[in-house]
Amino acid sequence: MLHTNLSRLLASGGPKRLISTVNKLTTVEVNDKTGIAILTMNRPPVNGLNLELLQDLKSSIDEIEGNKSRGLILTSSSPTIFSAGLDILEMYKPDMDRCRAFWSQLQETWLALYGSSVPTAAAINGHSPAGGCLLATSCEYRVMVPKFTIGLNETQLGMIAPQWFMSAFLSVLPQREAERALNQGRMFTTEEALRVGLIDETANSKEEAIEKCAAFIGTFAKVNPLARSLTKQQFRAADLQQLKNGRKEDLEKFLFTVSQPALQKGLGIYLEGLKKKVKKQ
Amino acid sequence: MLHTNLSRLLASGGPKRLISTVNKLTTVEVNDKTGIAILTMNRPPVNGLNLELLQDLKSSIDEIEGNKSRGLILTSSSPTIFSAGLDILEMYKPDMDRCRAFWSQLQETWLALYGSSVPTAAAINGHSPAGGCLLATSCEYRVMVPKFTIGLNETQLGMIAPQWFMSAFLSVLPQREAERALNQGRMFTTEEALRVGLIDETANSKEEAIEKCAAFIGTFAKVNPLARSLTKQQFRAADLQQLKNGRKEDLEKFLFTVSQPALQKGLGIYLEGLKKKVKKQ
Amino acid sequence: MLHTNLSRLLASGGPKRLISTVNKLTTVEVNDKTGIAILTMNRPPVNGLNLELLQDLKSSIDEIEGNKSRGLILTSSSPTIFSAGLDILEMYKPDMDRCRAFWSQLQETWLALYGSSVPTAAAINGHSPAGGCLLATSCEYRVMVPKFTIGLNETQLGMIAPQWFMSAFLSVLPQREAERALNQGRMFTTEEALRVGLIDETANSKEEAIEKCAAFIGTFAKVNPLARSLTKQQFRAADLQQLKNGRKEDLEKFLFTVSQPALQKGLGIYLEGLKKKVKKQ
Repeated sequence: MLHTNLSRLLASGGPKRLISTVNKLTTVEVNDKTGIAILTMNRPPVNGLNLELLQDLKSSIDEIEGNKSRGLILTSSSPTIFSAGLDILEMYKPDMDRCRAFWSQLQETWLALYGSSVPTAAAINGHSPAGGCLLATSCEYRVMVPKFTIGLNETQLGMIAPQWFMSAFLSVLPQREAERALNQGRMFTTEEALRVGLIDETANSKEEAIEKCAAFIGTFAKVNPLARSLTKQQFRAADLQQLKNGRKEDLEKFLFTVSQPALQKGLGIYLEGLKKKVKKQ
Repeated sequence: MLHTNLSRLLASGGPKRLISTVNKLTTVEVNDKTGIAILTMNRPPVNGLNLELLQDLKSSIDEIEGNKSRGLILTSSSPTIFSAGLDILEMYKPDMDRCRAFWSQLQETWLALYGSSVPTAAAINGHSPAGGCLLATSCEYRVMVPKFTIGLNETQLGMIAPQWFMSAFLSVLPQREAERALNQGRMFTTEEALRVGLIDETANSKEEAIEKCAAFIGTFAKVNPLARSLTKQQFRAADLQQLKNGRKEDLEKFLFTVSQPALQKGLGIYLEGLKKKVKKQ
Repeated sequence: MLHTNLSRLLASGGPKRLISTVNKLTTVEVNDKTGIAILTMNRPPVNGLNLELLQDLKSSIDEIEGNKSRGLILTSSSPTIFSAGLDILEMYKPDMDRCRAFWSQLQETWLALYGSSVPTAAAINGHSPAGGCLLATSCEYRVMVPKFTIGLNETQLGMIAPQWFMSAFLSVLPQREAERALNQGRMFTTEEALRVGLIDETANSKEEAIEKCAAFIGTFAKVNPLARSLTKQQFRAADLQQLKNGRKEDLEKFLFTVSQPALQKGLGIYLEGLKKKVKKQ
């Protein structure tokens, strides 16, 4: 998949630098012609957001900001999953020190992505539940391939999407759509997501999704980059500040939640179900 | 009307308990099969929200929360009026002690309904101006029977919808629609309300409206109820907190308003008009 | 243009008083029949918002409030420009005392227009970029003549629309539309503006635009004016308060911005370009 993508980009867009080191869970490729960086999540099988993937995402975002890239396109190396969201193993029978580091890193990574100075777009080439949807809605634009689903489905799993997941969701959806979907834990198909505004465009393949994301980033070609980034950050300031002001409370709330026996029991049952599903396949 | 409804529900949904005492202004019926409670306002002729109806609404909401019902459907025993809003007699030549109790109870009842832990829906089977619209927009879903009207028409009566009426309105309508309608005191027909998003569906009868509300509540069947209610309450937290923080000021503002001679004069003229209208009929 | 308009209004609406003094940059005409005031910006060639025009706008708004007019329609004496926005000469090589007075007046004028107690509408009879768009979106209704453009295009000029420009923009557009347009510095054609909700109606001429604005103001005919204005001001209170609380910081931010050599250089190049363009014509 990545190879095909590389060939296509090389064919259409000229030379490209592969920046990231190979032992990371993310790769960053900058197209030298367009100046746009493709940030690919590469933690098989489902891009579960564990501490290390979140750390690598953060350092890749920093890298792209530092490289003065013209934009950032977030995508996945999997042909069917954009990101399955938070890695449940980080929450099941957790080591509390690691759990604390995990959640703090999630906050850190979100602040970097949602507040990023460069234009951001998500090429959603697979399912994108929960934390996957958070990443997608934290970008400025979303292009999605058909026959996948996206949404904040936390309530389906007995969990509560934090306030800042809601902020990112509300930056895209009207209030009444957002509340209903959050309460239902609704997963939208690609077509439903387009209709409701959760995504901006559809594309028939990952390659086309990336091209459409690049076209969106291209709309900023004649815009002063500093003015653009300060405008974006001012627009998002209240949402960003709300988490910054409440990071400690937000962390404590999460630690309290994962320490609940009922949640642990639920996660245990869920993981058992996953194992059986895998065995059957 | 209620009888027909009862027969139909019994026919379609099996046994049902009638919980509330008969001398209340509200009734609560829980469908034992679906676990959904129907909360009916029953203060003829127009379900004017006076102190007693607001108290009974609050205790019925508490009852439903306590019974672990699967959901709450708010409706009216009148065939033409959902609720005509605040009872003007509570504001005309008021006893200030009762007036204080009245407004405090309105706040209390709204906090309970808007922040309710169970899924809520309104089967709007009649006109729903002002306070009636507040109750409807404080639910999570609205199904309305044709040929009625709904809206916050306070400015038409020389009054100002409080900030928290606006919050509930804004949880449903886009900002520009909400502001214009509030300033105009606009009443929407069922069809207009559907088009603008003030209601979610129409239904040809009260029974069908209740069925559609029950179907909406049914969408939460596979959702963890605790996660759902905490998600809803977090989503609505800022609106709820705004009133909680300002309850005293909000009460004083109301008491100041009703003590204005101009308002009293206006209410007097309005009530005279109502009397003449009734005589003519 | 103004003359034609006058004849038409006189023909259709009876006697009209011209209130403002002739040496002002704005005129106020009150239609004695409808009680609606037309506030015309008249600073050729482009209604650049300099200190004096902003002062005259503010005093005209005050005049209209004081005259108990039934409404305010904001328009332009130019056949092609509603307002080109802030006068760049106020920012290029600025005298800091005047610059301070300029920005403070802009704040003052906006607070008066956005918080105006009378119904407000904009008859947008020409291009309306940046500050022009701010004025238009601060009104309660917008009717626009075809083949013009409107938008907050600050980022195209290397500038940042202040928070309160964003508030007025967000009072009209959904959040995702508003953010994208702000970041892109997008100018909408009349048709695009209608589709996205940035304007409410189109009209084939200035006269028709004024008629449609008057029709909007007419929807308040049966509404209590005091209740209406208190409702509007309560609805807009948070936006107004945000600037009131931050006026000093907002001013300092502007003064810091205009003192940046990069901005001065950019403005210089822009002004050179304008001069050449004028010479060519």
